[in-house]
Amino acid sequence: MPEIGGFRQKSRRSFVTLILTVLTSSQSILIVWSKRAGKYEYSVTTANFLVEALKCALSLVALLRIWRKDGVTDDNRLSTTWDEVKVYPIPAALYLVKNLLQYYIFAYVDAPGYQILKNLNIISTGILYQIILKRKLTEIQWAAFILLCAGCTTAQLNPSSDHVLQAPLQGWVMAIVMALLSGFAGVYTEAIIKKRPSRNINVQNFWLYVFGMIFNAFAIMTQDFDAVMNDGFFHGYSLITVLMILNHALSGIAVSMVMKYADNIVKVYSTSVAMLLTAVVSVFLFGFHLSLAFFLGSTVVSVAIYLHSTSKARR
Amino acid sequence: MPEIGGFRQKSRRSFVTLILTVLTSSQSILIVWSKRAGKYEYSVTTANFLVEALKCALSLVALLRIWRKDGVTDDNRLSTTWDEVKVYPIPAALYLVKNLLQYYIFAYVDAPGYQILKNLNIISTGILYQIILKRKLTEIQWAAFILLCAGCTTAQLNPSSDHVLQAPLQGWVMAIVMALLSGFAGVYTEAIIKKRPSRNINVQNFWLYVFGMIFNAFAIMTQDFDAVMNDGFFHGYSLITVLMILNHALSGIAVSMVMKYADNIVKVYSTSVAMLLTAVVSVFLFGFHLSLAFFLGSTVVSVAIYLHSTSKARR
Repeated sequence: MPEIGGFRQKSRRSFVTLILTVLTSSQSILIVWSKRAGKYEYSVTTANFLVEALKCALSLVALLRIWRKDGVTDDNRLSTTWDEVKVYPIPAALYLVKNLLQYYIFAYVDAPGYQILKNLNIISTGILYQIILKRKLTEIQWAAFILLCAGCTTAQLNPSSDHVLQAPLQGWVMAIVMALLSGFAGVYTEAIIKKRPSRNINVQNFWLYVFGMIFNAFAIMTQDFDAVMNDGFFHGYSLITVLMILNHALSGIAVSMVMKYADNIVKVYSTSVAMLLTAVVSVFLFGFHLSLAFFLGSTVVSVAIYLHSTSKARR
Repeated sequence: MPEIGGFRQKSRRSFVTLILTVLTSSQSILIVWSKRAGKYEYSVTTANFLVEALKCALSLVALLRIWRKDGVTDDNRLSTTWDEVKVYPIPAALYLVKNLLQYYIFAYVDAPGYQILKNLNIISTGILYQIILKRKLTEIQWAAFILLCAGCTTAQLNPSSDHVLQAPLQGWVMAIVMALLSGFAGVYTEAIIKKRPSRNINVQNFWLYVFGMIFNAFAIMTQDFDAVMNDGFFHGYSLITVLMILNHALSGIAVSMVMKYADNIVKVYSTSVAMLLTAVVSVFLFGFHLSLAFFLGSTVVSVAIYLHSTSKARR
């Protein structure tokens, strides 16, 4: 792959970030839509497996086109060494553990409380990004990151949010562990993808998603084996299920692209903006009302983005 | 008065800011205390008049001590020219108009909504500070100021805060006009006091407060003349009324000192921190509960203060 100029690199970074924001936002809208249409009828584990399989297939299609255009090179060949591939199962395993914990945290924290606690991800990502990737955030960038976390939480405040302050210690500990797991998985993925910058992203994705498929197959066996055997793999699937799988697959790929061409910090900003975008779009789609807390939170998030971007420009 | 070194100037600035913060905070606690003890039984206009009178008296006492120590000089003599004194009634007049408007805004906005809207003062002070005093806030300082406004409002959020979004346009217009009046009065006072830096602050205060007394006497005549005539000037006064008058007088002097040795921006930060401090102290004094919104707002205000101070250090 030829050396890429600063401008092209920057515009590609902006492009994948924009795509990720739009996909994440529409993902939440699909979830609201499906909740309004009724409860989940399908098994979540099969859907997750299909998401990984679809991402795998899309990576292969992209690779086929590249091979046809550029031929097979060292950087875009699918075959790999044990040394390269051995780290790829780790993010998938971390996400699996995190998803398993998710079932248990609801014993201590209610769903709106969990939404609030999930914002701890922002802080854990920042800390692990600095520790593991050894890239220093400036003081202003840290200030911006704390604001991002506070702003997102503020935007999500509702009259029952204060319950989270009464959550038992176990709930808080689990939320912090989950935030660390999710932050670690994200930062680790970035480390894997950035380790060999010239390596084609689709090959890296292919291997990531292969292990994703394996771990999700394991989840089907342990959690939904009976349901799948009795009712079938695609039981309860609807148009909206298919759209959600498609969307999850595309946003998964967008996340990888952001990891490759930008970083976890950009990813966190992107998903935060997506959260705000979802709320605004929901006003038009579902007649939701925006609260004063939402306006205040959005203001704080906007200032955080401004501070982060000016601080970067100064470096 | 001898030329003051940078360190002494800075420590004096910190001292008056600290005093203002503590006084403002205890002022709110006195208000909560008096509300718990029962409704206001005394006439507010007579109390306001006494506050101005007490400030006037305290300035005179301070001047007497200075005259005894340093003798009477051009900078500390009480007598003045029409040219110097003619601008002094303006802040008092602006505050009077603002206080009159305060009675009318409650036709459109409820009391908690008014508390929320009062945070517009922060933004109006920033804008007028820049326009009238022609001192530029840096971009980071503006970001910090917007955060201060959003953070203070977030900290004050309660389940009924969203009502303010449904307030009629007249309510918003009046709130904005009041914010501009109050911001203008503050900035104008700073301009008067800073116009002649060598002039003794107690002389400047004396003249400010003389006009404060005149305007408040006018308020007694127009609003409470009958009540004062029938029930007496001090009708309904209690220990807490006396404490509140004392506190208002001292914080009024502290505000003047902050205007002289710091500026309106510092004053706004000081009163914002006082608001947060009041809430924390109320937890211990009155068993109040702190909301998640309060923690989030305090975090945002803390980041705002950090950003403002680092930005100043860099200039």
